[in-house]
Amino acid sequence: MTLPDRSAIAAMDASDPMRGLRDAFILPEGEVYLDGNSLGPATHAAQAELARAATQEWAQGLIRSWNSAGWFDLPLHLGDRIGRLVGAAPGQVVVADTTSVNIYKALHAALALRPGRRSIVAESGSFPTDLYIAEGVASTLPGTRLRLEGVDAPRIEDMLDGDVAAVLVNHVNYKTGALRDMAALTARIHQAGALAIWDLCHSAGALPVALDAAEADFAVGCTYKYLNGGPGSPAFIYVATRHQDQARQPLSGWWGHARPFAFETGFQGDPGIRRFQCGTQPMLSMRALKGALEVWDRVDMQALRAKSVALTELFIQLVEGLCAGCGLVLESPRDPALRGSQVAFRHDHAFAVMQALIARGVIGDFRAPATLRFGFTPLYTRHIDVLDAAETLADVLASESWRDPRFALRTAVT
Amino acid sequence: MTLPDRSAIAAMDASDPMRGLRDAFILPEGEVYLDGNSLGPATHAAQAELARAATQEWAQGLIRSWNSAGWFDLPLHLGDRIGRLVGAAPGQVVVADTTSVNIYKALHAALALRPGRRSIVAESGSFPTDLYIAEGVASTLPGTRLRLEGVDAPRIEDMLDGDVAAVLVNHVNYKTGALRDMAALTARIHQAGALAIWDLCHSAGALPVALDAAEADFAVGCTYKYLNGGPGSPAFIYVATRHQDQARQPLSGWWGHARPFAFETGFQGDPGIRRFQCGTQPMLSMRALKGALEVWDRVDMQALRAKSVALTELFIQLVEGLCAGCGLVLESPRDPALRGSQVAFRHDHAFAVMQALIARGVIGDFRAPATLRFGFTPLYTRHIDVLDAAETLADVLASESWRDPRFALRTAVT
Repeated sequence: MTLPDRSAIAAMDASDPMRGLRDAFILPEGEVYLDGNSLGPATHAAQAELARAATQEWAQGLIRSWNSAGWFDLPLHLGDRIGRLVGAAPGQVVVADTTSVNIYKALHAALALRPGRRSIVAESGSFPTDLYIAEGVASTLPGTRLRLEGVDAPRIEDMLDGDVAAVLVNHVNYKTGALRDMAALTARIHQAGALAIWDLCHSAGALPVALDAAEADFAVGCTYKYLNGGPGSPAFIYVATRHQDQARQPLSGWWGHARPFAFETGFQGDPGIRRFQCGTQPMLSMRALKGALEVWDRVDMQALRAKSVALTELFIQLVEGLCAGCGLVLESPRDPALRGSQVAFRHDHAFAVMQALIARGVIGDFRAPATLRFGFTPLYTRHIDVLDAAETLADVLASESWRDPRFALRTAVT
Repeated sequence: MTLPDRSAIAAMDASDPMRGLRDAFILPEGEVYLDGNSLGPATHAAQAELARAATQEWAQGLIRSWNSAGWFDLPLHLGDRIGRLVGAAPGQVVVADTTSVNIYKALHAALALRPGRRSIVAESGSFPTDLYIAEGVASTLPGTRLRLEGVDAPRIEDMLDGDVAAVLVNHVNYKTGALRDMAALTARIHQAGALAIWDLCHSAGALPVALDAAEADFAVGCTYKYLNGGPGSPAFIYVATRHQDQARQPLSGWWGHARPFAFETGFQGDPGIRRFQCGTQPMLSMRALKGALEVWDRVDMQALRAKSVALTELFIQLVEGLCAGCGLVLESPRDPALRGSQVAFRHDHAFAVMQALIARGVIGDFRAPATLRFGFTPLYTRHIDVLDAAETLADVLASESWRDPRFALRTAVT
């Protein structure tokens, strides 16, 4: 099959209905940023909101801004804005804490809703913090077992016996980009009497998510990847309305109380989603997220998905065409219907190859032990960026420039 | 006793060895801010650090800043800087999550270190989130009992039987400002075989704290009050070195792993204080805190305490002199050795009185059911501010201007 040439690819950008959104972002000159699935770039609106929060609301409004600037209710407002992007009706999502902490809340709540059942099912290929937190939950509830897809059985579907209380599962795999069928798996989990907790870290903002339609029970996700909230911006948690009356989580801090300012001695949880809050939230980081979410008012999620598929399809096509025989093996599903908004290739020297790419201005990332990972965020990534990245990768591999010793040194990278 | 007049009080400011520090802060014109014990004001350095983090490190450096800007290790660096202010040698404090979440970690760790003991002792007069979190911990560990000073016995010292695993106690009471003798109570707790968890929310940055010298086991605290880190800036947790090998906490997220970037399936905790981290931290809020901590390099903690005592003594003297017969009752300890850096008065109409004060530019706060609370932060509060606040309070009470109906409406206030 003939590869599209540069002019054909430029024409794709010219007719891209989302091309106007790129102007909302601040992107470094001369680089192709394909790591928005790790840390999304800043928008002008996020910078402006953050500056207003710091220089006006904090510095001038001081304590009054908890009310006058709407700080106290911001986790609920932002929760509803994210809810629209993940198919959740209002009142079911709150922005709070970290993804890890929210997984802890969701697992405890799910286990309490399924008394007598003692197993948590998760994926051995999960982003590890999900498993680490499940271990932590199990450590507080003796008898709880953590059973892993890929270790205890080949597929989650084969593990759903009557002991399973909760299934904690990633919508999109952080490494391969493999996309689960949320509705089908949730139905299967419910059929077995268990509850489904969806980790949306790599799908929220990357593709249409339909939590309510899929009848998901709980979900968690981060806001600093495809939602561009800024480094470490607070995470979110979804609790389906039908569970809110009964769901309990042990991080029962004052922000989850029905009357937080009555300073009562005993805890009485808010009847709604507020009960999944715990303590005072980092408002400066949260205000950057507020700004970051503005661009989404202009985004049609179906158009987002169409462009995402076009970008990842183009990248696979170009890389496989330009880099044939260079030792790359596609790790992502080839069928775009089974793939999120990222593409992974295995290479024996993936770490050094990625360092060489970064030195050339193509920013992707490495995932141990041997994965090159490229994220394609439809809001600002152009088709021409895909071509530039693929050509640079082909050149790095053909020239073996990655063998330069300066690319061998490993340091901590998120 | 004759009250000092305005010129005598101005002379106190002229000879104040800390007077130069006020320039580090941004303070609204024409107001007296006595709520730094709820939300500390911004410093110029905090604003500058935040702007650099947002416009350079995030917007330009993107994912690389996790390493190049030192984001990943910042919680440890800031922990050590706070450690200096609370008497903790390096490697025992980390900045992470919220105070509530950190209380949860500390309580779980303490209970696990004292197997066979089932009681948590806390104070009925505690800031409520401490109690709510203790309830949450108890809910995950059946058989655990929460026993409260002021309900189950008059004093903590009377409750220390062989069933007590952990005592969770506030160094300074959030409402009255009552200050505990940390060394004496910790010794008594240890004598009973239990562990001491100190809540430093109202003492860190307010007065000298000596965690190591007192042989405290755990401590938690917030950074947005006297440490001026910004609204909701991340909290900190202290774990004494001697416990770090054995201490376990169930919020075992990837940031607490010994090798977070190896993406291993099983959790293996870092051997040091990192194990008390959980998930990705809000870096923008954390960078504001970094800037806020700069001013502390110029602060002598003994001088801080001397000025704090002078300010609170002066306020009590002036209020009791100027407002005699106006229905105010001192709720704080009269002996400054038993008092933190705040002063509380009870008044039957405290809510409306505080609203009237705020309308006149004197910013303190109300605490249910009937407390007027005034914080005196030595870094920027002048003696003349104390006089202005006392005179305004006297005028509001004498004129009964608080009876204006607009001051009666209660809204949520932190």
